[in-house]
Amino acid sequence: MDKKIILTGDRPTGPLHLGHYVGSLKNRVELQDTCTQFIIIADAQALTDHAKEPEKVRESVLQVALDYLAVGIDPAKSTIFIQTLIPELFELTSYYLNLITWNRLKHNPTVKAEIVQKGFGEAVPAGFMVYPVSQAADITAFKADLVPVGEDQRPMLEQTNEIVRHFNQTYGQEVLVRAEALIPKMARLPGTDGNEKMSKSIGNCIFLSDPPEVIKKKIMRMISDPSHTDIEAPGKVEGNPVFTYLDTFDPDTAKVQELKDHYQKGGLGDGTLKKYLNEVLQTFLEPIRKKREEFAKDPAHVMEILKKGTEKARQTASATLSEVRDAMGINYF
Amino acid sequence: MDKKIILTGDRPTGPLHLGHYVGSLKNRVELQDTCTQFIIIADAQALTDHAKEPEKVRESVLQVALDYLAVGIDPAKSTIFIQTLIPELFELTSYYLNLITWNRLKHNPTVKAEIVQKGFGEAVPAGFMVYPVSQAADITAFKADLVPVGEDQRPMLEQTNEIVRHFNQTYGQEVLVRAEALIPKMARLPGTDGNEKMSKSIGNCIFLSDPPEVIKKKIMRMISDPSHTDIEAPGKVEGNPVFTYLDTFDPDTAKVQELKDHYQKGGLGDGTLKKYLNEVLQTFLEPIRKKREEFAKDPAHVMEILKKGTEKARQTASATLSEVRDAMGINYF
Repeated sequence: MDKKIILTGDRPTGPLHLGHYVGSLKNRVELQDTCTQFIIIADAQALTDHAKEPEKVRESVLQVALDYLAVGIDPAKSTIFIQTLIPELFELTSYYLNLITWNRLKHNPTVKAEIVQKGFGEAVPAGFMVYPVSQAADITAFKADLVPVGEDQRPMLEQTNEIVRHFNQTYGQEVLVRAEALIPKMARLPGTDGNEKMSKSIGNCIFLSDPPEVIKKKIMRMISDPSHTDIEAPGKVEGNPVFTYLDTFDPDTAKVQELKDHYQKGGLGDGTLKKYLNEVLQTFLEPIRKKREEFAKDPAHVMEILKKGTEKARQTASATLSEVRDAMGINYF
Repeated sequence: MDKKIILTGDRPTGPLHLGHYVGSLKNRVELQDTCTQFIIIADAQALTDHAKEPEKVRESVLQVALDYLAVGIDPAKSTIFIQTLIPELFELTSYYLNLITWNRLKHNPTVKAEIVQKGFGEAVPAGFMVYPVSQAADITAFKADLVPVGEDQRPMLEQTNEIVRHFNQTYGQEVLVRAEALIPKMARLPGTDGNEKMSKSIGNCIFLSDPPEVIKKKIMRMISDPSHTDIEAPGKVEGNPVFTYLDTFDPDTAKVQELKDHYQKGGLGDGTLKKYLNEVLQTFLEPIRKKREEFAKDPAHVMEILKKGTEKARQTASATLSEVRDAMGINYF
């Protein structure tokens, strides 16, 4: 059987954090062995709400690539590429925009939620409203079967599949491929402030590139059980981010169970607990950071990896665009 | 002084008619001697409201090119090109969409009027709503100083110039060039039904490619002075399309004045008048049709002209895109 094709990626708006690791990077490292994986550094999409800070997008392209390589995404197995260097994606977006109504775009639940979250008010950039269509171009250009998305991003994939259906129906050919959501098994990693999500804009992240002392500081300040003010009193484990992190990153599950029991019984202080979490996370992050530092010494080499990946990705996108133009009957030459 | 740069063109949705000739083709033939003229066959724009009939768009590309060559647009002087073959235009559109709000697009008066006219109702394609931004890409890619537009299209050019201003301000460089409207001196040619505009969708056109007998039939059926039912009674000249056509196409102005006097006095029948107009129009259209038929014998040659023009246009668009990416700081390699 043919390998499944995956399209996944990130908006380059800063370095990646533990939330990215848990929610997607870890899966990508596993999936690259069994699937054909395209990883998009979606700079065009980042520009839809960062048009005024393109330098941030530009710098983040390298940062994100370093994070990928550091966690073990292997350019020999996964094709990592830069979105704006695949002009075919812009052209596909343009054709797809004709197959979807303005009203449909307006009612995309994910986009509606993001507009509120980003505080755009009345000044929503047009590019931001149409980014789900640009995403459909990304997904279909590579004929992805699987797209790893969070539950809240399901509507985006529905919009893509709507476009796939409209296109194939309108032009009478099964050119575009329907994609399925691959919802990660792992629950979301909470922020260090206890927020359900790690998010740069909230400032509750531990970045993969954070130096040891920064990691330590962030952990010692993190939220545990806020009502646990007396060391000798019992503390809560459920919903306590410190234990969520331990469950996620400590391979010694027996030790974690022991700590949970102790904490629930009383007598285990949050300082002691966090010191232990710090050890666990330092152990986990050190090899990633070391590998990242190695790659960071030669940014030209990293950019060369992106260039090669982009060339490879472009061949696939270009073949799809050619089929699309054929189906539409506008391949003039 | 440098030559002015003009961007002009048509949506390929059918062959061109006398209204096109009067409103734009005639001017292009004159302007190509003094300006650098880019003529876009805007197939991507045609697809924004013809997504379900791409074959019509495809066929019309050749028809429109034949009309251009037939009226004397000279590929050695004017650069004729096909929009979808310039991928840079799609990419520019994408960046410009981030510099304009969704609300601004919604309030474009030209687009609002067209939505009503085309009867889209609630089902306006998203591509149609964003086509003014795609037009801004067309205009700015060639750094056009002048854009020939009808009075009703002024808002489109304002939108382009708004994007030019936003772009140059946001990225701190005067990369994009402000364009001026070139409003044609000649009034609009009315349709054969007396409607103020010749329009394919109304069905009141005389096409440049119409055979002699079709032209005659259309003229003999056209509206003159509807209240002029008695030959001997005086007829109205003002607002009478037959006289508007004569004023436009008959070089013998003395003869036209004579006919006007006669018609206003009474005693000149509409049949006689139309027969004369038929002679005038046949004389005018015959060399155009002959030239068109010549070119139509070798469509491969015409497509070759479009291919060469497209290659030339692409060089210019590509240079502009490179400046745009430089200004945005996203020229990675």
